[in-house]
Amino acid sequence: MGGDHGPEVVVAGAALALERRPDTRFILYGEQAAVEPVLERFPQLRAASTFHHCDFSVRMDDKPSQALRQGRYKSSMWRTIDAVKTGEADVAVSAGNTGALMAMAKFCLRTMANIERPAIAAIWPTLKGESIVLDVGATIGADAQQLIDFSMMGGAMARTLFGLERPTVGLLNIGVEEVKGQDEIREAGRLLKETPLPGIDYHGFVEGDDLGQGTVDVVVTEGFTGNIALKTAEGTARQIAAYLRAAMSRTWLARAGYVLAKSAFDRLRDKMDPRKVNGGVFLGLNGIVIKSHGGADAEGIAAALDLAHTMARTGLREKIEADLASYHRRISEEAASVSESIVP
Amino acid sequence: MGGDHGPEVVVAGAALALERRPDTRFILYGEQAAVEPVLERFPQLRAASTFHHCDFSVRMDDKPSQALRQGRYKSSMWRTIDAVKTGEADVAVSAGNTGALMAMAKFCLRTMANIERPAIAAIWPTLKGESIVLDVGATIGADAQQLIDFSMMGGAMARTLFGLERPTVGLLNIGVEEVKGQDEIREAGRLLKETPLPGIDYHGFVEGDDLGQGTVDVVVTEGFTGNIALKTAEGTARQIAAYLRAAMSRTWLARAGYVLAKSAFDRLRDKMDPRKVNGGVFLGLNGIVIKSHGGADAEGIAAALDLAHTMARTGLREKIEADLASYHRRISEEAASVSESIVP
Repeated sequence: MGGDHGPEVVVAGAALALERRPDTRFILYGEQAAVEPVLERFPQLRAASTFHHCDFSVRMDDKPSQALRQGRYKSSMWRTIDAVKTGEADVAVSAGNTGALMAMAKFCLRTMANIERPAIAAIWPTLKGESIVLDVGATIGADAQQLIDFSMMGGAMARTLFGLERPTVGLLNIGVEEVKGQDEIREAGRLLKETPLPGIDYHGFVEGDDLGQGTVDVVVTEGFTGNIALKTAEGTARQIAAYLRAAMSRTWLARAGYVLAKSAFDRLRDKMDPRKVNGGVFLGLNGIVIKSHGGADAEGIAAALDLAHTMARTGLREKIEADLASYHRRISEEAASVSESIVP
Repeated sequence: MGGDHGPEVVVAGAALALERRPDTRFILYGEQAAVEPVLERFPQLRAASTFHHCDFSVRMDDKPSQALRQGRYKSSMWRTIDAVKTGEADVAVSAGNTGALMAMAKFCLRTMANIERPAIAAIWPTLKGESIVLDVGATIGADAQQLIDFSMMGGAMARTLFGLERPTVGLLNIGVEEVKGQDEIREAGRLLKETPLPGIDYHGFVEGDDLGQGTVDVVVTEGFTGNIALKTAEGTARQIAAYLRAAMSRTWLARAGYVLAKSAFDRLRDKMDPRKVNGGVFLGLNGIVIKSHGGADAEGIAAALDLAHTMARTGLREKIEADLASYHRRISEEAASVSESIVP
């Protein structure tokens, strides 16, 4: 029911995703009167889906607390998340209200053991391929331990998604020197150097321009800065696309050149297409939830569903849990050996 | 002496700026052996300049405290700033070490009355023209009053630079609703609504993608976020330029199209040229200091000098002082009238 276009686009996106990955099965939640007519147009999707009617839908402008109060247990959003909790579904995907989705996901799935706060991870296209950036807006601020948790979770995601053995992780900062940045970032950097994490290589600090260059596989930051960086990059890409369109339609020669180079422009558009990397992954909860852009079209929804399929296949959640367990076991062993050496 | 290329590029940039604005006069500080040979190649610049030899230069990797300790009074950087303090120069321009320049500028010029902390303002190219964004890295964090100070200083800069009567000002946030963001941002937003500032129109919150769209004339944020946003945008622009180059050289047709549309591509390159908007303006000190990109070439240095010329001509510093005085007079009048109404 969520997103700017509702079932019209969400159902069409699911049909597209099913064509590409025919082993996917869908459980759809929504208002029958809105979903059924669209679903009828896609007989293959209909055959691969179970549909559950829900009277109540969270609106895009509901406050998280309000959505939780009114929509708990009964809204299509809640029931989608709950299907992950009960094990009926592997991943929950929604194009709805981000704040409400995060509030419900936290309430329903709870955070993983040893994780204080969840993060939203975005896939960032770079000159070298793709990176993972987190947190892009789950919560404001993060202390050193939370930044370390994000590093571990982002690292696990990079291993499952990109098939890397030891992804590189950088902390987003305003300079690469050790003296730069807030206390929390410097402390996290110090700890990451001292105690290597399972399955990642800590690179050090990275700056804003390293994001697009793909300097590291995983960029870690707190949610406010991550959200501003993500939207600034999206805005800059749109701005340059507008410059390019204006330049290419200005003279006859430019228009002729555009026609000749059309396949190159199509390729460029494809590279810059934000729909191709649609989907913010909620990490740190007992279950994976993916948030699609509210403005996504069917192609964008399908991209978020492709991502969900990959996450489920590769067992992202289990990998994160294993990393966390091994890290905290080692930390407590070290603490034990320290206290032993203190006790005479 | 500063920047990645030293006097070679700084002097050549000054010569370029002089051609464009022949009424400019330069006072140059640096090591004679490095500066003199370059200056000799530009007789017109030489005639329009006074040169002062300095034994000591701040290095690009000196820590601010170290630069201040070793270079105070005698370094070329210090003496450049001091020329503004004594009134010999209207504006100081340097391509050197940013941290050292800010530390020396604060120490030498001191902050303006009623201003606690300086900010660095950047000029941001947008779809509508240009905006001013501050702080892009002078200090980390800002309380509500400091964000209000930044709004006033940015507003004064937009009036002098863009010739606007009442520039619009927005606070950078992760959503436009009043409940979003850190306490300091929400508090600043509340205060800006309650007590209108002289010479600006407060717009409300803006998000990262509003930067490139030019939603407001002045975007206000604290230095960490501002720096990340600025570098993310620069990195994204470079990334897309690389995509475009790759796409246009891939096939014969694309290359032929590129040749036909060359003037359009040149126009686009011009639009995206970071050298055209080179120069971070230090605001809130008793004197204007402009920091050029360390990697700037002669064209970039000339852009920073053009900006310096405009700032001096339009009396930016006096405008900021007048705004601050009028704001604080009103604030204390209001406080007085409140205490009168309390005293029976």
